Amino acid sequence: MPLKILFIGDVVGSPGRKIVSQLLPRLIHRWDLGLVICNAENAAGGSGLTIKCHEELVEAGVDVFTLGDHVYRKDEVFTLFERTDRLLRPANFPLDSPGEEAAVVQAKDGTMVGVFTLLGRTFMRPVDCTLRAADRVLDRLGPLAKVIVVDIHAEATSDKQLLGRYLDGRVSAVLGTHTHVVTADERILPRGTAYQTDVGMTGPHDSILGRRYDRVLAANLSFVPHYFEVATGDPRLNGALLEVDPETGEALSIKRIAIDQDEALKLMTN
Amino acid sequence: MPLKILFIGDVVGSPGRKIVSQLLPRLIHRWDLGLVICNAENAAGGSGLTIKCHEELVEAGVDVFTLGDHVYRKDEVFTLFERTDRLLRPANFPLDSPGEEAAVVQAKDGTMVGVFTLLGRTFMRPVDCTLRAADRVLDRLGPLAKVIVVDIHAEATSDKQLLGRYLDGRVSAVLGTHTHVVTADERILPRGTAYQTDVGMTGPHDSILGRRYDRVLAANLSFVPHYFEVATGDPRLNGALLEVDPETGEALSIKRIAIDQDEALKLMTN
Amino acid sequence: MPLKILFIGDVVGSPGRKIVSQLLPRLIHRWDLGLVICNAENAAGGSGLTIKCHEELVEAGVDVFTLGDHVYRKDEVFTLFERTDRLLRPANFPLDSPGEEAAVVQAKDGTMVGVFTLLGRTFMRPVDCTLRAADRVLDRLGPLAKVIVVDIHAEATSDKQLLGRYLDGRVSAVLGTHTHVVTADERILPRGTAYQTDVGMTGPHDSILGRRYDRVLAANLSFVPHYFEVATGDPRLNGALLEVDPETGEALSIKRIAIDQDEALKLMTN
Amino acid sequence: MPLKILFIGDVVGSPGRKIVSQLLPRLIHRWDLGLVICNAENAAGGSGLTIKCHEELVEAGVDVFTLGDHVYRKDEVFTLFERTDRLLRPANFPLDSPGEEAAVVQAKDGTMVGVFTLLGRTFMRPVDCTLRAADRVLDRLGPLAKVIVVDIHAEATSDKQLLGRYLDGRVSAVLGTHTHVVTADERILPRGTAYQTDVGMTGPHDSILGRRYDRVLAANLSFVPHYFEVATGDPRLNGALLEVDPETGEALSIKRIAIDQDEALKLMTN
Ligand SMILES: [Fe+2]
Ligand SMILES: [Fe+2]
Ligand SMILES: [Fe+2]
Ligand SMILES: [Fe+2]
Ligand SMILES: [Fe+2]
Ligand SMILES: [Fe+2]
Ligand SMILES: [Fe+2]
Ligand SMILES: [Fe+2]
Repeated sequence: MPLKILFIGDVVGSPGRKIVSQLLPRLIHRWDLGLVICNAENAAGGSGLTIKCHEELVEAGVDVFTLGDHVYRKDEVFTLFERTDRLLRPANFPLDSPGEEAAVVQAKDGTMVGVFTLLGRTFMRPVDCTLRAADRVLDRLGPLAKVIVVDIHAEATSDKQLLGRYLDGRVSAVLGTHTHVVTADERILPRGTAYQTDVGMTGPHDSILGRRYDRVLAANLSFVPHYFEVATGDPRLNGALLEVDPETGEALSIKRIAIDQDEALKLMTN
Repeated sequence: MPLKILFIGDVVGSPGRKIVSQLLPRLIHRWDLGLVICNAENAAGGSGLTIKCHEELVEAGVDVFTLGDHVYRKDEVFTLFERTDRLLRPANFPLDSPGEEAAVVQAKDGTMVGVFTLLGRTFMRPVDCTLRAADRVLDRLGPLAKVIVVDIHAEATSDKQLLGRYLDGRVSAVLGTHTHVVTADERILPRGTAYQTDVGMTGPHDSILGRRYDRVLAANLSFVPHYFEVATGDPRLNGALLEVDPETGEALSIKRIAIDQDEALKLMTN
Repeated sequence: MPLKILFIGDVVGSPGRKIVSQLLPRLIHRWDLGLVICNAENAAGGSGLTIKCHEELVEAGVDVFTLGDHVYRKDEVFTLFERTDRLLRPANFPLDSPGEEAAVVQAKDGTMVGVFTLLGRTFMRPVDCTLRAADRVLDRLGPLAKVIVVDIHAEATSDKQLLGRYLDGRVSAVLGTHTHVVTADERILPRGTAYQTDVGMTGPHDSILGRRYDRVLAANLSFVPHYFEVATGDPRLNGALLEVDPETGEALSIKRIAIDQDEALKLMTN
Repeated sequence: MPLKILFIGDVVGSPGRKIVSQLLPRLIHRWDLGLVICNAENAAGGSGLTIKCHEELVEAGVDVFTLGDHVYRKDEVFTLFERTDRLLRPANFPLDSPGEEAAVVQAKDGTMVGVFTLLGRTFMRPVDCTLRAADRVLDRLGPLAKVIVVDIHAEATSDKQLLGRYLDGRVSAVLGTHTHVVTADERILPRGTAYQTDVGMTGPHDSILGRRYDRVLAANLSFVPHYFEVATGDPRLNGALLEVDPETGEALSIKRIAIDQDEALKLMTN
């Protein structure tokens, strides 16, 4: 029987956490999810992760967390790294950066699942080579898990497509995050890896990438710094739903997920 | 009766031009298109535009062309700028850059339609302020056309969302190009402007943004420059189909278009 | 008689302000300075400018202040902009950004002196075209002052050299700031404009650009954010000393200034 | 007796090669140079290195060559890499990039001298960590040479100062290249390493970084690409002259070198 994995895109602020808390318990049950992975780099006030925010998302049912370029924005993350090995910093950060670079966890059906996240290099703070880092982590994970999900947290679409192709047939899925806009290119690559350039943002979509439009506009027009407060309108849960063969790790399907308040209501009341 | 406008995303190389030539005449007829706009910055060998490539696309039925950061890659574009005023350089380029910054053309039903393209500023060559340039061009176009379509050619999703919100209610559509990956966020904004972060690429999708995977991979692994030859596999026509009220300029609908070879065949044979 | 103008490079933190306070009164007297201009973008704790820091530098003898990319880092600068028109934001910021874009002040000998500052575009936040903004400001200043000093606050050496050549013969001096490292290329350009790619930093030189080495190193090795505290060792006053013909505005000489504690002591005790 | 090493900054085009050919034989004799190192990344037409240009510089007396971000611009460099191990690509390029990452050569007095070059990461194509790469190469060179000269080819002054401090006491010199503008901060760091942020460019100084002003200006004003032809006026040889203790590797002195045509004439005729 296929293993079903939900990957939730960048959770932004309290509107993002709230919709996860509302929906995820029901989705786990209804979709019979075996594992839930969540990018939480924007969970706390739009940037970083705190103990409280982490707790909320764990309680909602998230099993493994990835983080991106905002990994160290909140100091509490260092405490979290000591408490859990299911919270991942980018694997192509310097070798002695705080945090785990990969996790191997057991899904509900007993399948061991490897998870890691990589940063792109283009238009981002210079990190080590994404491709070589993937090779290195896969050498470690290979003996431990057939099913492997990779978060590619990158600005440039080329960085994401390149990693997808590079890992095609070697992992179950390469799923993009960071741009906060969902792409319509989800598919199974020729050798069996599920791919999507960006799974989108979980948070207020009446916004600029989750932040208030008026603040972003004002800062752009005058260059005066404005606090980019998290917006509130139109919260949605965005992500990708995977079906994976637990024996081979091959992806069987990938489905784009975007649940707004109307659909959420239907899901909650059915 | 609504005016139907097709906007075709970055046409890449001969596979891109070929699928436009095959499909567009039929689409114009079948969908009763009143106007066709096309971003052609990658039409010639993947970068720039030549006289021959322009001719091919005109013959296929394209009415107005936008260009992006690769606008001046082929020298023949300067000749083209002299011959036609329906070929647009980015409007926030320096004021004396060659090429028109906006066009007003007549759709099949007689409606005057304004078109222009803007570059984002983030992660791109520094250009003048996107928002201010939009204001300036709209001051000129306002008296000439109610229906206005804007191509936002940008790397950062925030630049695109910001322009969309900034122009909401002032133009018919703000459609993104440049990342070559179609997004799934097409919608009508609150004040009646159609918006999509990126309409995607028209060209070979078995590729890295239209270029051969092996070349891009090799250049990434060794830093030795490789010619990024245009790929060939899985050509698709990507774009957005708009319905606009010709009286008010308001967008009535936006539909994501992605036609692969299988669908093309069906369209051609029905 | 030539007008002598001292231009002081980016003042960093309290070590920078302190050496200006110690030395400048004596330098004004000894060198018979007619005007003192100072880049103060790093004066308050290494980033931005406060009322108190501004006051200290005014009391030391600074007549006109330029600021750079860090212009709005401290909120008190907005109050300062209301109180004085001798405090300048970059002139190629958006037109409605807070702060004056140019100043015309009277030197000790009665000569009217124009001052403005421009940001480079390369490797910096995208601003409007440096060259066009210079043209625009010069149109305004032309009738008001023959002697004009321009601060080019830029990362790329090419941006600085290009502006120097572009303004050669039109202003008295084009002096670079921002990299915090003094260059050895001070000279009079062919048409009479004094030029130096960077006049260097006024602050603690036992540092990384004025900040503590250990902090910068730690942040680079682990990517964990560190507060880049202002360093303390080896404070120096860096700048350029100009002699200008007050009638024509032509530069007669430019001298690189770098005064460390030993030289400061000698200057103070002689 | 101290070992004297001349390090020549980025040689640009034929004007750069010509002044090296004219002057270097005489400098070697007059200054009793034990070794000559030269950054040749711009030697061929302003970008890259060819067999012929390499030969010219070898004949002039250059012993070891470093290259920078333009390392692979001319294809002939791959042939050169096969012929000589005294031609260095950046050591923090990918491990399987063509070219040697370090050289150990014998100076005239028999001293073994290690040489390597590193790229900065800021504002440049993303490469591997400069500091870690330095550690790795030094592990290899440590047993082979006490005297070690490092070329830091970087845009940001902070990258250069940081490497200088990081290697202080571990190498003889850290000398900057790439910005093409000589800095006035040459000094011996506390633990005995000679340091200069940039030694400057060897080539035509009546230019923008070695290229024709009119071409660079035109490209900036219109965004139309222009061939940045190498300029011709005011050729100078720029570099740093080191005195090193051959027993300990400690730097005894560093002197900024900038020889223009007038001085060259005097040197040639005395
Ligand atoms: Fe991110
Ligand atoms: Fe994010
Ligand atoms: Fe583009
Ligand atoms: Fe494109
Ligand atoms: Fe600055
Ligand atoms: Fe500064
Ligand atoms: Fe370079
Ligand atoms: Fe260079």
